[in-house]
Amino acid sequence: MTVSYTEFLTTDDFSGYEDSEKYQKEWLPKVLKYREDLEAGILPEFTVELPGSIEKLTEDKFNPLKYLYENKLLTEKEFKITDTPAFILAEQIAKGELTAVETLKAFGHRAIISHQFTNCAMELFVNEGLARAQELDDYYKKNGKTVGPLHGIPISLKEQMNYRGKITHGGYVSKIDNVVPEHGITNQVLENLGAVFYVRTNQPQTLMHLDSNNNFTGLSKNPFNLILSSGGSSSGEGAIVGFGGSAIGVGSDIGGSIRAPAAYSGCHGLRPTTKRISTFGGISGGAGQESVPAVVGPMARSVTDLEIWMKSYINVGKPWNLDQNCIPIPWREVSKPEPKSLTIAVIYDDGLVKPSPPIARGLKEVVAKLEAAGVKIVKFEPFDTKLAYDTVHKMYACDGNYAQRELLAGSGEPLKKLTKWSLSYGDGAKAYEVAENRKLNMIRDKLRQDYTDYLNDNEVDFILSPTYNNVAPKSEEVYNWSYTSLFNILDLPTLAFQTGIFQDPAKDVWGPEHADYKYRSKLEELECSNYNPEDFVGAPVGLQLSGRRYFDEEVLAAGKTIVDDILKCDLFDLF
Amino acid sequence: MTVSYTEFLTTDDFSGYEDSEKYQKEWLPKVLKYREDLEAGILPEFTVELPGSIEKLTEDKFNPLKYLYENKLLTEKEFKITDTPAFILAEQIAKGELTAVETLKAFGHRAIISHQFTNCAMELFVNEGLARAQELDDYYKKNGKTVGPLHGIPISLKEQMNYRGKITHGGYVSKIDNVVPEHGITNQVLENLGAVFYVRTNQPQTLMHLDSNNNFTGLSKNPFNLILSSGGSSSGEGAIVGFGGSAIGVGSDIGGSIRAPAAYSGCHGLRPTTKRISTFGGISGGAGQESVPAVVGPMARSVTDLEIWMKSYINVGKPWNLDQNCIPIPWREVSKPEPKSLTIAVIYDDGLVKPSPPIARGLKEVVAKLEAAGVKIVKFEPFDTKLAYDTVHKMYACDGNYAQRELLAGSGEPLKKLTKWSLSYGDGAKAYEVAENRKLNMIRDKLRQDYTDYLNDNEVDFILSPTYNNVAPKSEEVYNWSYTSLFNILDLPTLAFQTGIFQDPAKDVWGPEHADYKYRSKLEELECSNYNPEDFVGAPVGLQLSGRRYFDEEVLAAGKTIVDDILKCDLFDLF
Repeated sequence: MTVSYTEFLTTDDFSGYEDSEKYQKEWLPKVLKYREDLEAGILPEFTVELPGSIEKLTEDKFNPLKYLYENKLLTEKEFKITDTPAFILAEQIAKGELTAVETLKAFGHRAIISHQFTNCAMELFVNEGLARAQELDDYYKKNGKTVGPLHGIPISLKEQMNYRGKITHGGYVSKIDNVVPEHGITNQVLENLGAVFYVRTNQPQTLMHLDSNNNFTGLSKNPFNLILSSGGSSSGEGAIVGFGGSAIGVGSDIGGSIRAPAAYSGCHGLRPTTKRISTFGGISGGAGQESVPAVVGPMARSVTDLEIWMKSYINVGKPWNLDQNCIPIPWREVSKPEPKSLTIAVIYDDGLVKPSPPIARGLKEVVAKLEAAGVKIVKFEPFDTKLAYDTVHKMYACDGNYAQRELLAGSGEPLKKLTKWSLSYGDGAKAYEVAENRKLNMIRDKLRQDYTDYLNDNEVDFILSPTYNNVAPKSEEVYNWSYTSLFNILDLPTLAFQTGIFQDPAKDVWGPEHADYKYRSKLEELECSNYNPEDFVGAPVGLQLSGRRYFDEEVLAAGKTIVDDILKCDLFDLF
Repeated sequence: MTVSYTEFLTTDDFSGYEDSEKYQKEWLPKVLKYREDLEAGILPEFTVELPGSIEKLTEDKFNPLKYLYENKLLTEKEFKITDTPAFILAEQIAKGELTAVETLKAFGHRAIISHQFTNCAMELFVNEGLARAQELDDYYKKNGKTVGPLHGIPISLKEQMNYRGKITHGGYVSKIDNVVPEHGITNQVLENLGAVFYVRTNQPQTLMHLDSNNNFTGLSKNPFNLILSSGGSSSGEGAIVGFGGSAIGVGSDIGGSIRAPAAYSGCHGLRPTTKRISTFGGISGGAGQESVPAVVGPMARSVTDLEIWMKSYINVGKPWNLDQNCIPIPWREVSKPEPKSLTIAVIYDDGLVKPSPPIARGLKEVVAKLEAAGVKIVKFEPFDTKLAYDTVHKMYACDGNYAQRELLAGSGEPLKKLTKWSLSYGDGAKAYEVAENRKLNMIRDKLRQDYTDYLNDNEVDFILSPTYNNVAPKSEEVYNWSYTSLFNILDLPTLAFQTGIFQDPAKDVWGPEHADYKYRSKLEELECSNYNPEDFVGAPVGLQLSGRRYFDEEVLAAGKTIVDDILKCDLFDLF
């Protein structure tokens, strides 16, 4: 590699952040206690014996999901439950054909195995979940009805969201004493709908990696190949949902943090339009930043499950009654569109970083199937992507990393590699004045209007694009956010979906033309030179489908047409 | 008066803004031409002879609206048309009982008289409106149907919004050459709905006065008493709609700019929740500022007309198809609530500036009628109003007035008194860093959540409050925005409505307890010492009704119950 990530850092002086002595003395003991608590949550009756050390399995590019099936690590009943879409489980529970306790036992078992392989959890409390499931079963028995549409559905939660009576730290050691009295609004809404909680999942320091390293519990790994990342920042969600240890996961996304882990780890994930799902109550370095707001959204192995989650959350949960920031747009029933009715603009390359061979192949194969099904395909060279990329990065960092510094320096914890990377976004530690931020907002609004006009003028329904220029990267080697963050700055609802295609080292090699390829930037060189076919074996090829702002319903409806009907991709039946 | 407004200014050095030589030489000639164009729009056949010089009438606290009726300055037919609610006019036109041309002739006539007395217009183009009306009549004749729900309705427009082929300057002389090729989205939507345009109305320099002085055409005056202000910043809209020269007006509001002119000038006005009505395409010093966004909304003499405007605009106009920033919440049909079903929290005093005698009396009388009708009244001492006031002022100015300075210094135009006042908001010319802006946003979000929790916890449907601590102020003597800007920072939809009560110098004197009243601030002293009963004779008493964020429909529905059913206030039949 001729280019190193350190060339991109705006500084190598992080003395304003790190304080090794303070960290070791005051904070590390608390971190060790936190790790012990996690260990204690790994119920022995649900564990399996690993087929080797994690180090060895990682080196071997081990595929734990395949191993799960091949070695029948669950009972037949547990496989049946955990390989049923959540919306069907909910129906079965509502009909009395299945109990919440049975359901949670199955998912709890699979979650703990998932954690053993992928290190997806930050907190495991399956016994608390079983107690809650029992209460729900009792309620059902007594009243003959469910408490809500997600009655008995095991839902995993990104740690960042406030959880009543538990620590919420958001990946910052300085917040390790932050035991919150109340659920954040989203956790509360889900609980009201009948969800069962049993695990809170991993996320990176600062929440600003498309990966997961942190000083609490370290990295999560990819359930399809342990040498690869499960993505991030909703890293643990990617791993646990992709592995089938959760019926539906809840992540958050300010630059790709739902879509990257979904795409990398083999599940689907929706980045909803802003303000449809509550983000109130939790830890974030982006508090008060509204140029490019974070969103919360679902991850699952079926697009219909994403839909059921959104519909239940919005129409029954009515989050606007609890959070003033949620807009009361009811979830509309939109039926699956006919392929022939669809016009899709395809981004083959965003002009910044060229997709790696498996992504280029996957996109091509998907487009061929869409065309065969009658979808009208339009090639789309997305405009102003460099401007969008630069602008969104400045938006993240234009407080001069003030908030991140406060949260990190509080404990003096050591900075992870990708923390340094994201602290170098925009102009790094240079604090902008408000007038500059307003100018960035004006650039953003023009971009949004121009993309809206593009869709209108060309009668395009959706944009299809890579989720990232590669399949899941190797751990701590994901640098480029351009494919995902474009849709954050545009605020377009975007589904990251699985194609049923996986990286194949035999097929997915750079073509002969690549030898002469002249990189358009050092970033592209850094990303592309990381791709060697052997390491990425078995990684899922995930893509993105983006629709019009606030028209999340149409995105999921078209997602079902594409995933279920055209690609016939069934994530419950992979091995 | 022991306190002067100059004490509040953060600086008396405006040399970075004003440049007399440049202004006189390069810009004043263009301004003079602009004034000539306005004069040319005053069609002689529609003018009346004034009963004295404007100076004399002002001194006499002349009531031009009363004069209009008493001297029958319009034909019977013109009175009939201009004193019919717009929603009924629309029905009559749709049935072929009335033509668009007849309608515009009547309103054009009344508008020109309104302008003669109040100086409400910046541009008058009644002949263009008549041509458009004729086209609409031709369309109707040919097709037997209307082009949309506002077919033939004369609508007045705040100048700030882009108008195809005309100058749009927003009150800044530096923009006097800005002839725009396209309508702003709202003008476009209204045109698509069938509206007829014929006048663009007055607004202050910077758009940041609750009044109207500017270097183009000067001050607008109150149609009920010429010594008083018509409010602002949608100043001309207040005057023309209050006088009946427009069926429905369109204003904008970032701190009270729809509600103040509506309340002062004797009409109703809705400040909708943000993002329901497009603000795209126009001039504003707040571009890119999204901590407290401006909104666009309607002003009219009937609450039902506000409703018809909102409903047509949203459900037929579908602004989200044109402006990516508009949220697709359809306008819901909400029926008028029964008084007995309502719980209203009343703000008698916001803790910052005590209401003047006519406002205190008006509020008391309204509350008595509400209670008599069965409405449950709760006294509400609003919390954190000082924090809200300080925060919203900082939000306006936290770019260190960068945008205002650019727009003003471009021409070096002389600064108006209330421009200096608003340039002193927050910390005046001190530019904040982004981190500080983010903290202000966090304060705002907590305020919003706390007020939401108050409404929830106390089962309160609406908040009733003064629109301002006084009735219409004397020109250029309006300083305090606290009653209106509270609902901008909270982003609650707020109706400014007329009560049918008017200031009476005999009744509305400070009570004996006022002699011992200890002012809580210099601002309060400045405002209260401006109130002498004689000057305010005949000024309308307008109040505010605020509801839940995004629930604009309920606010207007309850507004109809209060204004039409309980107060029986008919603005079409005042004299």
